[in-house]
Amino acid sequence: MIIDCHGHYTTSPRQHEAWRQEQIAAHKEGRSAPPRPAISDDEIRASIEGGQLKLQQERGTDLTIFSPRAAGMGHHLGDASTSEAWATACNELIHRVCTLFPRNFAGVCMLPQSAGVSPRNCIAELERCVNQYGFVGCNLNPDPSGGYWQDPPLGDRYWYPLYEKMVELDVPAMIHVSMACNPAFHTTGSHYLNGDTAAFNQCMTSNLFKDFPGLKFIIPHGGGAVPYHWGRFRGLAQDMKLPPLPELLLHNVFFDTCVYHLPGQELLAKVIPADNILFASEMIGAVRGVDPETGYAFDDTKRYVEQLPLSAGDRQKIYEGNARRVYPRLPARLAAVG
Amino acid sequence: MIIDCHGHYTTSPRQHEAWRQEQIAAHKEGRSAPPRPAISDDEIRASIEGGQLKLQQERGTDLTIFSPRAAGMGHHLGDASTSEAWATACNELIHRVCTLFPRNFAGVCMLPQSAGVSPRNCIAELERCVNQYGFVGCNLNPDPSGGYWQDPPLGDRYWYPLYEKMVELDVPAMIHVSMACNPAFHTTGSHYLNGDTAAFNQCMTSNLFKDFPGLKFIIPHGGGAVPYHWGRFRGLAQDMKLPPLPELLLHNVFFDTCVYHLPGQELLAKVIPADNILFASEMIGAVRGVDPETGYAFDDTKRYVEQLPLSAGDRQKIYEGNARRVYPRLPARLAAVG
Repeated sequence: MIIDCHGHYTTSPRQHEAWRQEQIAAHKEGRSAPPRPAISDDEIRASIEGGQLKLQQERGTDLTIFSPRAAGMGHHLGDASTSEAWATACNELIHRVCTLFPRNFAGVCMLPQSAGVSPRNCIAELERCVNQYGFVGCNLNPDPSGGYWQDPPLGDRYWYPLYEKMVELDVPAMIHVSMACNPAFHTTGSHYLNGDTAAFNQCMTSNLFKDFPGLKFIIPHGGGAVPYHWGRFRGLAQDMKLPPLPELLLHNVFFDTCVYHLPGQELLAKVIPADNILFASEMIGAVRGVDPETGYAFDDTKRYVEQLPLSAGDRQKIYEGNARRVYPRLPARLAAVG
Repeated sequence: MIIDCHGHYTTSPRQHEAWRQEQIAAHKEGRSAPPRPAISDDEIRASIEGGQLKLQQERGTDLTIFSPRAAGMGHHLGDASTSEAWATACNELIHRVCTLFPRNFAGVCMLPQSAGVSPRNCIAELERCVNQYGFVGCNLNPDPSGGYWQDPPLGDRYWYPLYEKMVELDVPAMIHVSMACNPAFHTTGSHYLNGDTAAFNQCMTSNLFKDFPGLKFIIPHGGGAVPYHWGRFRGLAQDMKLPPLPELLLHNVFFDTCVYHLPGQELLAKVIPADNILFASEMIGAVRGVDPETGYAFDDTKRYVEQLPLSAGDRQKIYEGNARRVYPRLPARLAAVG
């Protein structure tokens, strides 16, 4: 079984994102948001069958751990109440996808974050999504300001109420920024990768996993710059008299395989233990074209993983075993849907 | 000849950085800064002979392109006038090092940047350092706010007056952030690497090198996350209908080899053409320890480069040829000192 741990609903029916525009416009003008649009099951089916499901089948993957469009989370827009309404709407749509295609998608929720608003505010929506919808994880944005980095780092006690709930519910978080509103950053280029690198470094210099030994983070996009600079991070940790990185972080931190060329994938598999790598493609997402050097889609990451010199056991971990372990609610969900 | 294009004066005599503390304290209290401290040639010699020069000799490199301590630039501290006084002091010290050890060090200046102050303000100091001191380049900070990213991206016309002067003087810039004052970032971990990745992406999405075909940037720390995600950047450029990255950027953008483990160096050499890689170690800098996996210093980058499957011609480019080309004033300086 091949589990893709990183997919977003980037193909949702048009009226969903249109409502978001109206919601934010209304908020700016001090009006109430319009009622949510009707979206039929057929529209949802069409948006998936022609998109993610088609690519799953073409590429030979089985299940996508599926969450709302990451750039669309837009935690810098509006306020806590608009974030709550938007998160609720997005998560409900994910639930509908997972209900219509239970063998192909398992849900992960976005959180109703807002810059400067306590993450405590996210607990109710997380509980709802896990307990009512059967979601298996959440996406946590380490920079709800959208590129100005105004919230405390992930190791700060500011985030602890949310972590307590995550541990209680036994769900991990993918640490994933959203759209950059700072013109210094390109959303899917520098901002995503920088968010990953910053998040890893924040974990490294904190007591987070001492305080929450059961907390699990997936750092997407192959871990940002981290595996490429694994020697730098090993050396920095050593200079800071920290334990070696495997001991300090690798019980809790995992990297996905959203790296869009073979040399990058080779590096990832060379420096990060197979126990800490989860297969993912971020499809349909940041990069949508065909690589002229290979003739295949950049984000068809299975093609790279197939070429890595992995043992059968390690490949199974990357494709399936690690996901079942990092998302502890996933096995029961898979068993339930057959 | 082996040229290390990235060294900072991290070992300067104590009174130099002590004066900086006093200068900033005085600025906060509205007082004038105290007079600059006396620093003898013997003190400078000692700071270099026991540090960078010793390591050059031990490691078998010949010349370091040498600039003020990067984290110490602190463009977020004080204002334009404190930045000017500090840059002047730091650059003068670099000049004294290069005068005392002309065959071992060539100078690169820091610029008197301040968040929100036009880069036009840096022109006089750049001219002074190039014309009076014989410096061969400058360090340009893309985020003088220290991690809040408040200045326009590097492709913005805001920076053009400085670029015009760089092209006129025929000097490149290493794009190098300084200390992070934002608690979200670790200075030499995430902030440096994120600055590199952001700078590359800013260049990619701008008309910068159309407007300045002769402008040259060195992206340090192996290019941040960029080579590891070269497929992602190739794909993003293609999706944006931009020319291929080699055509778009590689006449103007170069990466150094400050990557502190062999797998990272292998990746760099695999995906970036040899014409665009400059040998560097960042010594004595971010990582100072010995890698227990190899028994050698993490930042002894020559040991990694020696192990790469490079042709003699490519190795010569990386060690020497590219530096002579990217720093066009370097050959004359080298000839002058024999």
